[in-house]
Amino acid sequence: MDYQRILEEIYDEVKPLLDEGKVADYIPALAEVNPKQFAMTLTFFDGTQFSVGNADKLFSIQSISKVFSFTLALKFYKDELYRRVGREPSGNPFNSLVQLEYENGIPRNPFINAGAINVVDALINYYEDAEIAFKKVLTFIRDIADERDIEWSRVVADSEMEHGFRNMALANLMKSFDNLDNDVEKVVRTYFKNCSVEMSTKMLSRAMLYLANDGVDPISGEIYISASQSKRINAVMLTCGHYDASGDFAFNVGLPGKSGVGGGIVAVVPEVMGISVFSPGLNAQGNSLVGTRALELFTDKTGLSIF
Amino acid sequence: MDYQRILEEIYDEVKPLLDEGKVADYIPALAEVNPKQFAMTLTFFDGTQFSVGNADKLFSIQSISKVFSFTLALKFYKDELYRRVGREPSGNPFNSLVQLEYENGIPRNPFINAGAINVVDALINYYEDAEIAFKKVLTFIRDIADERDIEWSRVVADSEMEHGFRNMALANLMKSFDNLDNDVEKVVRTYFKNCSVEMSTKMLSRAMLYLANDGVDPISGEIYISASQSKRINAVMLTCGHYDASGDFAFNVGLPGKSGVGGGIVAVVPEVMGISVFSPGLNAQGNSLVGTRALELFTDKTGLSIF
Amino acid sequence: MDYQRILEEIYDEVKPLLDEGKVADYIPALAEVNPKQFAMTLTFFDGTQFSVGNADKLFSIQSISKVFSFTLALKFYKDELYRRVGREPSGNPFNSLVQLEYENGIPRNPFINAGAINVVDALINYYEDAEIAFKKVLTFIRDIADERDIEWSRVVADSEMEHGFRNMALANLMKSFDNLDNDVEKVVRTYFKNCSVEMSTKMLSRAMLYLANDGVDPISGEIYISASQSKRINAVMLTCGHYDASGDFAFNVGLPGKSGVGGGIVAVVPEVMGISVFSPGLNAQGNSLVGTRALELFTDKTGLSIF
Amino acid sequence: MDYQRILEEIYDEVKPLLDEGKVADYIPALAEVNPKQFAMTLTFFDGTQFSVGNADKLFSIQSISKVFSFTLALKFYKDELYRRVGREPSGNPFNSLVQLEYENGIPRNPFINAGAINVVDALINYYEDAEIAFKKVLTFIRDIADERDIEWSRVVADSEMEHGFRNMALANLMKSFDNLDNDVEKVVRTYFKNCSVEMSTKMLSRAMLYLANDGVDPISGEIYISASQSKRINAVMLTCGHYDASGDFAFNVGLPGKSGVGGGIVAVVPEVMGISVFSPGLNAQGNSLVGTRALELFTDKTGLSIF
Repeated sequence: MDYQRILEEIYDEVKPLLDEGKVADYIPALAEVNPKQFAMTLTFFDGTQFSVGNADKLFSIQSISKVFSFTLALKFYKDELYRRVGREPSGNPFNSLVQLEYENGIPRNPFINAGAINVVDALINYYEDAEIAFKKVLTFIRDIADERDIEWSRVVADSEMEHGFRNMALANLMKSFDNLDNDVEKVVRTYFKNCSVEMSTKMLSRAMLYLANDGVDPISGEIYISASQSKRINAVMLTCGHYDASGDFAFNVGLPGKSGVGGGIVAVVPEVMGISVFSPGLNAQGNSLVGTRALELFTDKTGLSIF
Repeated sequence: MDYQRILEEIYDEVKPLLDEGKVADYIPALAEVNPKQFAMTLTFFDGTQFSVGNADKLFSIQSISKVFSFTLALKFYKDELYRRVGREPSGNPFNSLVQLEYENGIPRNPFINAGAINVVDALINYYEDAEIAFKKVLTFIRDIADERDIEWSRVVADSEMEHGFRNMALANLMKSFDNLDNDVEKVVRTYFKNCSVEMSTKMLSRAMLYLANDGVDPISGEIYISASQSKRINAVMLTCGHYDASGDFAFNVGLPGKSGVGGGIVAVVPEVMGISVFSPGLNAQGNSLVGTRALELFTDKTGLSIF
Repeated sequence: MDYQRILEEIYDEVKPLLDEGKVADYIPALAEVNPKQFAMTLTFFDGTQFSVGNADKLFSIQSISKVFSFTLALKFYKDELYRRVGREPSGNPFNSLVQLEYENGIPRNPFINAGAINVVDALINYYEDAEIAFKKVLTFIRDIADERDIEWSRVVADSEMEHGFRNMALANLMKSFDNLDNDVEKVVRTYFKNCSVEMSTKMLSRAMLYLANDGVDPISGEIYISASQSKRINAVMLTCGHYDASGDFAFNVGLPGKSGVGGGIVAVVPEVMGISVFSPGLNAQGNSLVGTRALELFTDKTGLSIF
Repeated sequence: MDYQRILEEIYDEVKPLLDEGKVADYIPALAEVNPKQFAMTLTFFDGTQFSVGNADKLFSIQSISKVFSFTLALKFYKDELYRRVGREPSGNPFNSLVQLEYENGIPRNPFINAGAINVVDALINYYEDAEIAFKKVLTFIRDIADERDIEWSRVVADSEMEHGFRNMALANLMKSFDNLDNDVEKVVRTYFKNCSVEMSTKMLSRAMLYLANDGVDPISGEIYISASQSKRINAVMLTCGHYDASGDFAFNVGLPGKSGVGGGIVAVVPEVMGISVFSPGLNAQGNSLVGTRALELFTDKTGLSIF
């Protein structure tokens, strides 16, 4: 298949939509981003990459970081992790307290905010220190992206912390149900540091390879997690990766994926490739509008879909 | 792969669990079923079948019928169908009125009760008659199962109608939101007739082939729906096919599937086969306990999973 | 106090507001009412009446009927009634299914629709016939209003039944929780007949005297219920009589009262008088906009308030 | 009426119930209280007091403090206060986040936790300092109780702060909706200081006199608030003073009142007296079990009720 041509076709088709999304404006650091950007990269098992747009542009990975912290927590805690966080779709916006209260402080899945905060708490338990836990997540991201220079943004993390009242509410609520072990503010701060990591579509699509290849990096041969764990992370991405639009994404794209409010999306074609798209304008559900459309066009044009 | 041996291994492993489920007891007709039954069948594209247990035993397909009525409605209405029913996981028990009220009478997806009742209403619109709509659904089921003798059970349908107050509540609520066109009682009665259809695992696994083969019956060559529609039905089965345990099923089994309170489950391995299991004891979420376990063992042993 | 002058002042002050409410339009029979009407009557223990506006105009009492059916059910069942219906404010719109589902089919109080339907079901149990139960409610209303000619409107009742899908949903939901004994349609029809009774403010204010006088009609001396039951009905009117605006009514008016979507409101000054207002334009909570304002002005001007 | 005899009768009748309640155990400082205590005091407009039990025993007033902070905020902000907090019953447990989220961070009334925290925030705005705001509340309490020695408990306040994750969640949630102006932790800490004030039934019943007398202290002649404000505070106490059991309290007691988890309850007989009861065992709704029963007996025996 001529992937380069397909990517260029996609870019042409989505260009008219670049105006339609709305950049996340709840924190100043994200609100300043130019909404008209677009990039998309495919990375294959031999390291070959096809890109379109500004594929080296760094952006805030935001909730995509939830995939990486979930991977580490699952590696260390295995099924015990599910005592503190579920794996069911939420049927509610990503930051709803309602469901969390009805379900006694157990978040529905690791990809809604409460769940991701809870996973960070588990990692702090494991490493016995918030600072170290964050460094280990960052190191893991550098490993799977094969890129030593990946950094986080103190400006973005601080800005999120300053406006993070809803996440503080979620964390305090879990704490009130005895489902958070560490200091509330420390956990939320670590969570925001994870979110502030900056990557490009080239890096992110490369970083997805271990999930396309049953837990093993196909280039380095490094075994990160078991095949079964890898498949299960993909399953959670498919059912819960896009908040209240997860069903829609499964329906229209048909690939496991995860989005972030920074405008990035990652996706996996099992046994074949890692994908990443970037376009900062968001749709009503908080997912990249153009990014979602680009992935729909991609599976339409290639016939690649898990169904 | 030695599928016959695998099925027999599975049967051996689940036997000790046959006591643990709870037969649906909300209607007398279902409550009388012997809980210790088990059957499982795989059907391949050339018609080859592997079975274990009493694979000719007829049982009430119940909510599995939702897949068939959804297929017909999607065929006729295409994307217009999504004006009246969504495709997002529900995050709530299958018969909850709460979500339906908050979301103004638009059911979350076609596989919760409200959604399936709504789909039946759409089919009655299309055929302009409830009686004919039901007959067409039955004919479609006979076609895809390649079995003329499939029948419905008036005893089961009447019994459900007599105890169907919650479904009547759901239908009246949709009607109050102007999202139901036909007479409430007539729609619900037709829905219950669909649910009362009786099939065996041999028939059901055969009936799934069109969804494993992009909408085309691989044996007869009959084109039922488009490849894209077929993939999308699979996506909805994966994200919404098991009520509040859909995430769990995707996580542990990793195949698109649909369960019914009669104890049946159907699943699809895209491009490979149709599967059906039967065991009437249910777990807390209303899905066949042993059936779910059998499918988990199946994907563990065969490595067949869409992820 | 010069009650006549006070009523006339009130009329002058509310006249400019007669345009602001919105006539109930969910059934044709109510939608046709001229919104500019106003009437208000005070009835004292010796039968003296002061009125302003068209105080003989008959209107549909609608939910005010809930006070009368509740009185009869409380008389017959005493505290046993509270097994099937609560007495807590609802904190939700009057016809919400959400709360009813979360609370397992036990309506919060007898003045939300589900509660009133449930009370009618209890009366049908008591009289062993729906037709007789309705006649007894009508007879009771005629007795307390001392007016033989009070009738119900078949046109209004039929029209409500035809559009009563939400009430049918509520009744079916209670039935699904085993908290409704009689045929769903029969109970709802009887409820709508109660609602369709037509009275004037003269009749309604007269009918309130037993609740202002500890359960005893101060004119005829007839003992309808005990002093304690009477006080408790007043308490439920105060906390639950105006749906989601009950707190507001208690706050601004300070009297036990009950409103109906037909535009009527009744209120009680304990030990002093019965009051009724009529003006068909409704506010956002479904209570008479001008009627509520007139009662606020009344307690402001007279200092009569239970607080 | 022989009030002393009535109080003694009440004490005799409730004694067997002193075992049935459950002392609040969510903070160590409250959990240590001996559950078998009882005290009740009536205070009349001339200062006469009738007491039974240990009426000088100091206890943590907890949520009764909400009446006092609400009084001050209403005095300063008048109806403008209702932009940030409502006056409708909540229909949900006192510390529910669900309703707060559905209603965009506007608490239902000033007597649920979120509402009281919000009122404290308004007072901090008014006094421009949290420390001063608390001192002014304390001074107000000392004034209305005519008792200079009333103090707060740092042990109790600190202990609540240490376990106050749910209140921190509520405050953060309001902040996320822009309905809290000051630092979250500072507001919650001030709220807990208010709750930790320690008073006896003698002091509390004395402190209620201004609400029984249209805002004016009947002994000192001091005008605290207007008659209309006073009546409206009573209305809010009646409809919202006992969390999810407010309807029950109105129904069974028939007086405006407010309870606290420390086991205290205050109530008002308009134009007649202030009342306070203390007994630390709580019922399922978090109100003093014996205190509630004592007040029911009191209105039964005296016929004093606002209805």
